[in-house]
Amino acid sequence: MKILILNGANLNMLGVREPGIYGKLTLEELNREILAYAQNLNITAGFVQSNIEGEIINYIHSAQNEYTGIILNAGAFTHYSYAIRDAVSSVGIPVIEVHLSNLHAREEFRHKSVIAEVCVGVISGFGKYSYILALEYFKMNY
Amino acid sequence: MKILILNGANLNMLGVREPGIYGKLTLEELNREILAYAQNLNITAGFVQSNIEGEIINYIHSAQNEYTGIILNAGAFTHYSYAIRDAVSSVGIPVIEVHLSNLHAREEFRHKSVIAEVCVGVISGFGKYSYILALEYFKMNY
Amino acid sequence: MKILILNGANLNMLGVREPGIYGKLTLEELNREILAYAQNLNITAGFVQSNIEGEIINYIHSAQNEYTGIILNAGAFTHYSYAIRDAVSSVGIPVIEVHLSNLHAREEFRHKSVIAEVCVGVISGFGKYSYILALEYFKMNY
Amino acid sequence: MKILILNGANLNMLGVREPGIYGKLTLEELNREILAYAQNLNITAGFVQSNIEGEIINYIHSAQNEYTGIILNAGAFTHYSYAIRDAVSSVGIPVIEVHLSNLHAREEFRHKSVIAEVCVGVISGFGKYSYILALEYFKMNY
Amino acid sequence: MKILILNGANLNMLGVREPGIYGKLTLEELNREILAYAQNLNITAGFVQSNIEGEIINYIHSAQNEYTGIILNAGAFTHYSYAIRDAVSSVGIPVIEVHLSNLHAREEFRHKSVIAEVCVGVISGFGKYSYILALEYFKMNY
Amino acid sequence: MKILILNGANLNMLGVREPGIYGKLTLEELNREILAYAQNLNITAGFVQSNIEGEIINYIHSAQNEYTGIILNAGAFTHYSYAIRDAVSSVGIPVIEVHLSNLHAREEFRHKSVIAEVCVGVISGFGKYSYILALEYFKMNY
Amino acid sequence: MKILILNGANLNMLGVREPGIYGKLTLEELNREILAYAQNLNITAGFVQSNIEGEIINYIHSAQNEYTGIILNAGAFTHYSYAIRDAVSSVGIPVIEVHLSNLHAREEFRHKSVIAEVCVGVISGFGKYSYILALEYFKMNY
Amino acid sequence: MKILILNGANLNMLGVREPGIYGKLTLEELNREILAYAQNLNITAGFVQSNIEGEIINYIHSAQNEYTGIILNAGAFTHYSYAIRDAVSSVGIPVIEVHLSNLHAREEFRHKSVIAEVCVGVISGFGKYSYILALEYFKMNY
Amino acid sequence: MKILILNGANLNMLGVREPGIYGKLTLEELNREILAYAQNLNITAGFVQSNIEGEIINYIHSAQNEYTGIILNAGAFTHYSYAIRDAVSSVGIPVIEVHLSNLHAREEFRHKSVIAEVCVGVISGFGKYSYILALEYFKMNY
Amino acid sequence: MKILILNGANLNMLGVREPGIYGKLTLEELNREILAYAQNLNITAGFVQSNIEGEIINYIHSAQNEYTGIILNAGAFTHYSYAIRDAVSSVGIPVIEVHLSNLHAREEFRHKSVIAEVCVGVISGFGKYSYILALEYFKMNY
Amino acid sequence: MKILILNGANLNMLGVREPGIYGKLTLEELNREILAYAQNLNITAGFVQSNIEGEIINYIHSAQNEYTGIILNAGAFTHYSYAIRDAVSSVGIPVIEVHLSNLHAREEFRHKSVIAEVCVGVISGFGKYSYILALEYFKMNY
Amino acid sequence: MKILILNGANLNMLGVREPGIYGKLTLEELNREILAYAQNLNITAGFVQSNIEGEIINYIHSAQNEYTGIILNAGAFTHYSYAIRDAVSSVGIPVIEVHLSNLHAREEFRHKSVIAEVCVGVISGFGKYSYILALEYFKMNY
Repeated sequence: MKILILNGANLNMLGVREPGIYGKLTLEELNREILAYAQNLNITAGFVQSNIEGEIINYIHSAQNEYTGIILNAGAFTHYSYAIRDAVSSVGIPVIEVHLSNLHAREEFRHKSVIAEVCVGVISGFGKYSYILALEYFKMNY
Repeated sequence: MKILILNGANLNMLGVREPGIYGKLTLEELNREILAYAQNLNITAGFVQSNIEGEIINYIHSAQNEYTGIILNAGAFTHYSYAIRDAVSSVGIPVIEVHLSNLHAREEFRHKSVIAEVCVGVISGFGKYSYILALEYFKMNY
Repeated sequence: MKILILNGANLNMLGVREPGIYGKLTLEELNREILAYAQNLNITAGFVQSNIEGEIINYIHSAQNEYTGIILNAGAFTHYSYAIRDAVSSVGIPVIEVHLSNLHAREEFRHKSVIAEVCVGVISGFGKYSYILALEYFKMNY
Repeated sequence: MKILILNGANLNMLGVREPGIYGKLTLEELNREILAYAQNLNITAGFVQSNIEGEIINYIHSAQNEYTGIILNAGAFTHYSYAIRDAVSSVGIPVIEVHLSNLHAREEFRHKSVIAEVCVGVISGFGKYSYILALEYFKMNY
Repeated sequence: MKILILNGANLNMLGVREPGIYGKLTLEELNREILAYAQNLNITAGFVQSNIEGEIINYIHSAQNEYTGIILNAGAFTHYSYAIRDAVSSVGIPVIEVHLSNLHAREEFRHKSVIAEVCVGVISGFGKYSYILALEYFKMNY
Repeated sequence: MKILILNGANLNMLGVREPGIYGKLTLEELNREILAYAQNLNITAGFVQSNIEGEIINYIHSAQNEYTGIILNAGAFTHYSYAIRDAVSSVGIPVIEVHLSNLHAREEFRHKSVIAEVCVGVISGFGKYSYILALEYFKMNY
Repeated sequence: MKILILNGANLNMLGVREPGIYGKLTLEELNREILAYAQNLNITAGFVQSNIEGEIINYIHSAQNEYTGIILNAGAFTHYSYAIRDAVSSVGIPVIEVHLSNLHAREEFRHKSVIAEVCVGVISGFGKYSYILALEYFKMNY
Repeated sequence: MKILILNGANLNMLGVREPGIYGKLTLEELNREILAYAQNLNITAGFVQSNIEGEIINYIHSAQNEYTGIILNAGAFTHYSYAIRDAVSSVGIPVIEVHLSNLHAREEFRHKSVIAEVCVGVISGFGKYSYILALEYFKMNY
Repeated sequence: MKILILNGANLNMLGVREPGIYGKLTLEELNREILAYAQNLNITAGFVQSNIEGEIINYIHSAQNEYTGIILNAGAFTHYSYAIRDAVSSVGIPVIEVHLSNLHAREEFRHKSVIAEVCVGVISGFGKYSYILALEYFKMNY
Repeated sequence: MKILILNGANLNMLGVREPGIYGKLTLEELNREILAYAQNLNITAGFVQSNIEGEIINYIHSAQNEYTGIILNAGAFTHYSYAIRDAVSSVGIPVIEVHLSNLHAREEFRHKSVIAEVCVGVISGFGKYSYILALEYFKMNY
Repeated sequence: MKILILNGANLNMLGVREPGIYGKLTLEELNREILAYAQNLNITAGFVQSNIEGEIINYIHSAQNEYTGIILNAGAFTHYSYAIRDAVSSVGIPVIEVHLSNLHAREEFRHKSVIAEVCVGVISGFGKYSYILALEYFKMNY
Repeated sequence: MKILILNGANLNMLGVREPGIYGKLTLEELNREILAYAQNLNITAGFVQSNIEGEIINYIHSAQNEYTGIILNAGAFTHYSYAIRDAVSSVGIPVIEVHLSNLHAREEFRHKSVIAEVCVGVISGFGKYSYILALEYFKMNY
């Protein structure tokens, strides 16, 4: 099984800034931990990050021939990118929306996801474990 | 570790009705599967269900001396029970909000949770795996 | 045919208070009149009332094996109890929503029913006749 | 007793189109069934239909000297015609609002009635029986 | 100078019903009083009333070649008829919106006029004097 | 008969600025024209203007023992001064709300009056004639 | 092929008033140009206009046995006539909504169409070409 | 004089959790202080607490034959329980709404009370003194 | 202890007008009763009233060096004066918001206080006792 | 004449996914059909597609020196990209907004276009013919 | 050049209270710093402060004959004083709106300015430099 | 000191289009003027512009090691790009939001900035001086 871990806007800044909210792990370290966990589950994990909405759309499109599913943390695009939403609903593979922090415990505008409706489900608030639980789900079901 | 699986309104009807949305598993079967999984993780799982909002509050209050954490599926109370929300924030143990179906893909009124803000996080849309992933999280962190 | 007449919050106070809005009939007298009417129609009528939302849910659940249908006046729960709504949609028997007074001629918050969408229909504003017309409908159709 | 059955916008298309929502009965057949039922109740029934808002207002005005009450299905005018509302409140006879389908189970804009506030009550969702139950109410009370 | 007094929905019921709100004058008596006042001012007054929105539009269209201005009481159409609004803005003669009662002291939906924006001004709350003050204005300015 | 002409915020700037909206008349000239018209009607007119909300309230309070009625143009206070509204409803004499320009044809925030509900009526859009028509109404009725 | 060109409220005033928005063509001239274009396409075009909402509904109803499709410019009814919407959805023939001006570049209330949802599509902002492009579409598809 | 002190959802957790908001007093200690104060005022105080909305309704119903008045802190039910509101308005004895903390200084959803409208008044923000001031009021007036 | 009783807009009209809502006491009589009660409690009470928002702000500012606390009834300023709100939060002494009538049982716009958030608490609906209970609170705590 | 056909987010997925909504044509096939039609009209057509909002802006900017006009299907950017809107209003050439499906018959968020206001007009709901009708319009007018 | 520095509600409390938000400078010290800076720029600076809305309006009116421009910090009046807004638009001299703190980073109600629309521009968030930058702008442009 | 001047969507079109709103200066000329002014202040200024939201995010990220601060005009992204907002709050250097035109005097959607909350402050409406005043601020404080 091959799963794409796709991170969106500002997630390259992880660990560098606002560790109170997002933890001290850098994106590289986060990805390394996810990779290790994936290998234990016998999952091949791919990793991409972009701050450009349209590149995220392109990654989603091209994932469908190569990956079993996508774990998507779109960052702030979650709250307004109907274009990413359409990208998710245009591909045939399952997408799980994840967030490091509990969005419901933050600013009002972060309570709304325009993407969740077309995903399998949402895992939010568990730090790196949001990604890891998503991997577990893929393992158990695919 | 001891985790309380606390199910709210109408979850006793699981498997009997609307299997298109909630799957064919009855609550008893669901609980049996969760129990088996918990035993594998060396977690002692407790199971309660109630259709009465105030009883759910009571279960949350009394859980704090006996359990490490709560996995809470409040059913439709999720969308308006500020009293359950206050119960969650009044106890010292972590609570994870779970849902069987992806609430964002259903009626508008199901998109809003008044409880999520005071939980650790939310896992929604993975059927029985919503509960199982929550167990995994507790296992990994406590 | 067996029909459950299920009254919700504060309907036990009928006739005692606010007769200007709800009429002078007590709940007991109302039930007696409905019973007489039902007997004329050859309908077996059951009567329950509760001020506890979760008990109403329990009554709805257990009615489905015993009754042909339910005549439901949920009182003020009508306006916010998504849990009762889910109970109605979780059972296989038809439910008719009734109200003694014309809710549209009262406070703004009484104009909205969160339950009506999953009922067969609504009869509102006819005093005791709201129940009696619902009985007539069941008689004509079941 | 003389009752006016007054149908509004598009009800002349009944049975011809969208039988999934409105049933297979044409307006003529519906009226014939209502007439038969009325005769059994010893009620003289009048029948008018118009797609013109102002004609419906005229029918309401002129009904007050000839009829005991009105059974009004204003069609889509229900949702915005404050002028029909004022017509209802300007006459001295009781008006019952009826609908064939359960408006709460359809589009959002159909959930609101601007007329109901000034009617005796509302009967909605029972197909032809919405009219027949209204007749029953008039019989029992006038 | 020739002025059209154009009354809309339900104003034919004036004096017959709801005298508490609209006064005891019938439309005929109101028109007679306005006529007498107009004659004193040397104004030729025309009078029409209709419950049909489209007829009111037609009256507005055809007034422009015959009348100096229009005194328009559109009744409940005031609150939603964008079509009457467009009719007013499509003719070259001045239109004054009048109301018998003070709309701001009645139901919320009566606080909004969709027509006022394209009129010269509004006179509201003075009973028959709303019309008479409008006549005075025309006399003083045309 | 004695009538108080009470002008509110910024009306002292009349004629000096924005003549496109308010006309070229200064407040002094406007008052002189109103005074002349009032004398013809045998009305004693008093004139005050203030930019201070509380002074306008004081003028309203003290008017009730000296004046038959008030013609009130509160300027921008019209749209938010619930305190002036309470002042109007606290005195026993009739108050007419007037505006020089047609507020419905200007910015959205000018469409709403929080004072109109407790006035006799509103005359808006007729320039100086808004005041003069209000005088006429007082003459005809008191 | 036979197409009905159905114009609603105030379109009889075309060319006479507000040429800045609607162009200088009268309705008669517009219809003549559409007719010529239709003849080139071998389409038989019918033309009706009414300011009365209910007549427009009647035209839509009766068109279904005679016409292949309808080109509908409902004028201001577009923004509130749920009754015309229901008429469109009650007939079996395709309806195209057209507008002379670009409604999105005008007042806020013109941005919303309650009819468009049940039409094939919308063509708005192209003057007479809005009708002509609709004819082209019918030609290419029927 | 006999006064019922009726506490709602989660008030049994007082003093145990979130002392920053609610103070360090447990419910038992709070009640003991209120009792002492009541005895000084010669008031017989009754004390009940429930997390079950319907039980609170039952307490209100049964209080009316035994108590002079009720001091009600409904907890989070304050913000959505129209059923408790109806219970208050269905009994003949005065009810005072109290809150320990100043709700206006907390989350938005706590700013709205659906119960206050049918109470004598509201005392909010004074800790245990909210109850004691309510006792004082009853003493001074009954 | 020295407490300032600070009354805002229109409270000088107390007892003169609308006794149905505010009681028959004049402001002078009310102040005399409060003074007597304060003397019993050994509190020195100061009394000011103003209809001018800015003067109320000035009174609040200057109170902080002379008074232990303020009892503030801002009248209608309660609902929109963010400037008074800032004055309250700019001084170091406790302020209690009081109202004679139960604002929740009056017009919608009176349900919202923009000042309460920065006060100690609110006492509303108890007539003169609203002030007296506030005095009691100051006595018990300072 | 030279026209740019500019497609936005996810339109590269045309024909591959969700043919129920968008038809079976791929983007390449669609472009080929448009090209053929353009050639018949003697129009030189350019074709670009991008999932990156800023690239679409760049295409619009650079089109103005090379093209007579633009046919723009911005995909989901239509509903929130004020930046594309500003790009359209910053160039001197006419832009027509087109959509394959009837947006009013889909999700609520698709009913609003933030771009339409600054376009010549909108053609929506006609599949490939939306583009073709736009070409026709350019042919007829430029 | 002569510039009026006009401060509104509660700015006389500067430095005394809430230094966390507004800094430790008193208004007098702030003015002294601004004065020194102005002198360097060869600007004559006038300074006024008032807590009374109407006095601020008067200052704006009278500034127009004496000053080149106004630097206006209206305090909390910024958010609701349409009367100050009208004062600004009624004078011929440029007005710059300034704020010490970044209003967007504070309470929701502080995000909206009803005055900014009629000012030259807004400078917000730079403490005393907000005033000084405004001086710089006047120097560079007048 | 090194400051990055970062311009967003459509600002490359400056001076070419809509000079009525944005002035006649091209972006190159604007930058040249800012550069000259910066040199006078001894500030090293960097200049970048992009129409691609994600590139702006990248510029902000990489600025933090090279620049003292950022002057950001995000163009229309200001109103919806929560991703740029997060980029600003993820870097440690101060960011000032600037706008050429006074956004409050333009369309409603331009009144809201989703970025301002996490900036030092906002300078809006002063044309090129918005940038220059921001430079001055940096000079005075860093």
